[in-house]
Amino acid sequence: MNYSPLQKARYEYQPKLPLILQNDINNIEVCYGNATQSVADQDKIKEMFPNTYGMKTISFKKGSSKAKKDGQVVGVILSGGQAPGGHNVITGLYDALKKSNPNNVLLGFKGGPSGLLDDDYIEFTDEFINEYRNTGGFDIIGSGRTKLETVEQFKVVAEVAKKHSLNAIVIIGGDDSNTNAAVLAEYMAATNSGVQVIGCPKTIDGDLKNDVIEVSFGFDTACKTYSELIGNIERDANSAKKYWHFIKVMGRSASHIALECALECQPNICLVGEEVEAKNQSMMDIVKYIADVVEARSAKGLNYGVAIVPEGLIEFIPEVKVLIAEINELLAVHEKDYAVLGTWEDQFNFVISNLTSNSAAVFKNLPVDIQHQLLMDRDPHGNVQVSRIETEKLLITMVAKELKDRGSKAKFSALNHFFGYEGRCAFPSNFDADYCYSLGYNAFLLISNGLTGYMSTVTNLSAGPSNWEAGGIPITKMMNLERRHGEFKPVIRKALVELDGKPFKYFEAHRKEWAENTCFTFPGAIQYYGPAEVCDITTRTLAIEQGN
Amino acid sequence: MNYSPLQKARYEYQPKLPLILQNDINNIEVCYGNATQSVADQDKIKEMFPNTYGMKTISFKKGSSKAKKDGQVVGVILSGGQAPGGHNVITGLYDALKKSNPNNVLLGFKGGPSGLLDDDYIEFTDEFINEYRNTGGFDIIGSGRTKLETVEQFKVVAEVAKKHSLNAIVIIGGDDSNTNAAVLAEYMAATNSGVQVIGCPKTIDGDLKNDVIEVSFGFDTACKTYSELIGNIERDANSAKKYWHFIKVMGRSASHIALECALECQPNICLVGEEVEAKNQSMMDIVKYIADVVEARSAKGLNYGVAIVPEGLIEFIPEVKVLIAEINELLAVHEKDYAVLGTWEDQFNFVISNLTSNSAAVFKNLPVDIQHQLLMDRDPHGNVQVSRIETEKLLITMVAKELKDRGSKAKFSALNHFFGYEGRCAFPSNFDADYCYSLGYNAFLLISNGLTGYMSTVTNLSAGPSNWEAGGIPITKMMNLERRHGEFKPVIRKALVELDGKPFKYFEAHRKEWAENTCFTFPGAIQYYGPAEVCDITTRTLAIEQGN
Repeated sequence: MNYSPLQKARYEYQPKLPLILQNDINNIEVCYGNATQSVADQDKIKEMFPNTYGMKTISFKKGSSKAKKDGQVVGVILSGGQAPGGHNVITGLYDALKKSNPNNVLLGFKGGPSGLLDDDYIEFTDEFINEYRNTGGFDIIGSGRTKLETVEQFKVVAEVAKKHSLNAIVIIGGDDSNTNAAVLAEYMAATNSGVQVIGCPKTIDGDLKNDVIEVSFGFDTACKTYSELIGNIERDANSAKKYWHFIKVMGRSASHIALECALECQPNICLVGEEVEAKNQSMMDIVKYIADVVEARSAKGLNYGVAIVPEGLIEFIPEVKVLIAEINELLAVHEKDYAVLGTWEDQFNFVISNLTSNSAAVFKNLPVDIQHQLLMDRDPHGNVQVSRIETEKLLITMVAKELKDRGSKAKFSALNHFFGYEGRCAFPSNFDADYCYSLGYNAFLLISNGLTGYMSTVTNLSAGPSNWEAGGIPITKMMNLERRHGEFKPVIRKALVELDGKPFKYFEAHRKEWAENTCFTFPGAIQYYGPAEVCDITTRTLAIEQGN
Repeated sequence: MNYSPLQKARYEYQPKLPLILQNDINNIEVCYGNATQSVADQDKIKEMFPNTYGMKTISFKKGSSKAKKDGQVVGVILSGGQAPGGHNVITGLYDALKKSNPNNVLLGFKGGPSGLLDDDYIEFTDEFINEYRNTGGFDIIGSGRTKLETVEQFKVVAEVAKKHSLNAIVIIGGDDSNTNAAVLAEYMAATNSGVQVIGCPKTIDGDLKNDVIEVSFGFDTACKTYSELIGNIERDANSAKKYWHFIKVMGRSASHIALECALECQPNICLVGEEVEAKNQSMMDIVKYIADVVEARSAKGLNYGVAIVPEGLIEFIPEVKVLIAEINELLAVHEKDYAVLGTWEDQFNFVISNLTSNSAAVFKNLPVDIQHQLLMDRDPHGNVQVSRIETEKLLITMVAKELKDRGSKAKFSALNHFFGYEGRCAFPSNFDADYCYSLGYNAFLLISNGLTGYMSTVTNLSAGPSNWEAGGIPITKMMNLERRHGEFKPVIRKALVELDGKPFKYFEAHRKEWAENTCFTFPGAIQYYGPAEVCDITTRTLAIEQGN
């Protein structure tokens, strides 16, 4: 590897910790708060987690630590998609562990949960870990999407843990991974394995979020990276004054990223999947809304603009959701009949004749490109890969047609973009660097105090690190029952954009003005140095939620 | 407009000037160097520019200025595509002009050259111009693509100039715009209009470049922005270890951007259009090269990678170049016959049956998506819009097919990206902010010293602003004759990537290592603050050329 100047400089950055964690590690005392309840389905979840349900919230105060300082052997895994700051969770964990006792050991299991099953690991050393401080990516140990959820897997994990004398496992992941962390914690407790399990809240999508997880890590950096690009494109649109730019951003289940980018950049249009679903908006409702904005701007001589589209939008549109489900079913059931069809015409006719009449009509109305994408790109489970559907192109085509059908005189020349992978491995912003380091540092304190089934939490995040509060929350507290694969499972409730939440309300109150006028904001590239108001900016969503 | 924290902070940035320009403007004396010759076709170009050919190179030294300080009324236009730093050219010009005498006037003609023809302008004031200091975009006065090239247009410009008592016009543009600036300068001199014309070298593509224009402005910032994203994607690839990313970057005629990004990021593959053309590489040659790299990496267990593809690549591939020319011709001649064809099958057969057999074979071999793009997206002149051809997708499809045909066991799952508009309006890097401000400041000194037909130059650019040299070079010096629209025209020679130049040689010497191993470099976001080695990085191409 060849180090860029920024990478070298970032090695020198010392992440900021909450005030309480800045104390000598021997002077941090654990405080037990109230016992907790799950957010719903309390009885059922209590039954499923007899050993780890109802535990108390944890915070810290200055005092005499009763934690176990030595003999700590901890394993850590990264789970799921990359998010900026993952490396800092590990460096924070490592630093706290080594400060506690230099003989403590941190093992990194490689390639995600499968590393734990395959016993594929490295032992962290100063020399190795220093190469990853304050850098993006998950390449320190890699990540993976294997799910740890069966008892068979748990048994293997217990064996691996026993082999290495692990007393704790830290799982850095999203809602699913943390759900599984809780189940694993319960298993380890139930079997008296002596292995604790602690989770850390990761996901750029921002949908692991509740009253104690103010934001998942990586969301800030990813959104700032997308917003840099969106702002640059806004400035381009405002200079050239001839293009509409349709920008798709990551975020499948929830539109937090799209909303945050809108709050940062003030584009002319931002679609929010949760609103589309709540209002039962059809594809044509959306197309008409966009066409109205295009016409309103054009009437003012503004034949350009920027629209943000969340990746998952298409699944929120009722009739498309049905269409996709029908196609998935159809191609799975008739896989062989379909495979022998030689021409596009044959494929098209086959599909049309096997869909319900409603879905057939929806399908016929789609541009040919999108029809192809719906039929061609199957994932290993036979489902359409939603992220590969070029929703942004679809909207452009349909808006152009709508304007033509209206006989509109608005000029509409549009370009499309998709930002996703660009933001997942950026150097973490100072916010994410500090937040992640604190999460990891804090995770060790939970471990050394003998806790299990907790998520590491750092709160009061919009107020600056010295005002941050560190602690832990039982993962079961965030759970409810949801139906998955035909049975009720205890899961962490996924946080969607709340239409009555302050961030959406702010957007809603301003979007008409942003649509008809040009109120673009150009955030520019993430700054790691310079004036605090430039390099320590809080995520807008958080700032609005917390009233800053 | 709502100002981002970075935008506010950048207002405070004071761009650095070459040492000589830091002197009191009254103490800067012009020095005349050697008389110049055009780079080729000297006799013919001398004949075409009787008043502005053979002028001397200009530099400055500390001494007593003989420049005209007052009564200066200067017009400025931005021409062509956006490039970071354009605003700073104007602020530098403005500051020098006002320092010379506060009553001097700077007019900005709006929307590019057409603003000059339509007399659509604003007069700059401190209050207005301060909002644009050190910002990206061309929205200060807008830009446009109208070409100023006919005598009729020149007459209109002369009238507008007379109306405003303009004594000079500054044209900020690329090679074509500066060619036209030279022709306009000649016209103004020949007609004794008293109007001087000065050019400034703009283009993110980097193809306005020669022994005196070390780099055009905007190239540095645009490439750093793309490299930020490419580096992030490299880190993602290196973390997930499951995708090949094919990244198309802007640069149609020349592959400077692709090469610079490769030098900054060390990807596994970077294609260079000039090499493809020089070696007469066919599409299959390229596909096989990529497939070889995919297989070589796969053999080492590396089923991922990053490939950079210049936007204009497809036009450099001999058989595709012929195919595109044939299709352009075919659809222009048979426009009506083609328009009535209702189905894709009919269109396909019509095209196939009217192409030469070679081109028909090439066309048949292309994926359906690309066939569509070649036939559907016509520009107003009936030509295919090359930038809209998804070359990166084409390569993915063809490489996948090649690997299948080989019976290869290499895993090849690929994603595509296109970076272009994201970089054209970024906040200029410190380098571009300083360079552009200096170009503009310097342009005023050329004007006040009575010069015309010059391009503003700042050289020795890899050595830091205090070592930069300011001056001017007759635009005719850069010219040669090229055949355009059936006649020989004097034009600034477009600078392509030189295959025997140091940057390409460096790339060539390393690419095998970069291909087979993982030597990714992660430049991260442009930094405007912080350690000098982070925020004042020279463009790699320049550094290598100048041996730094």
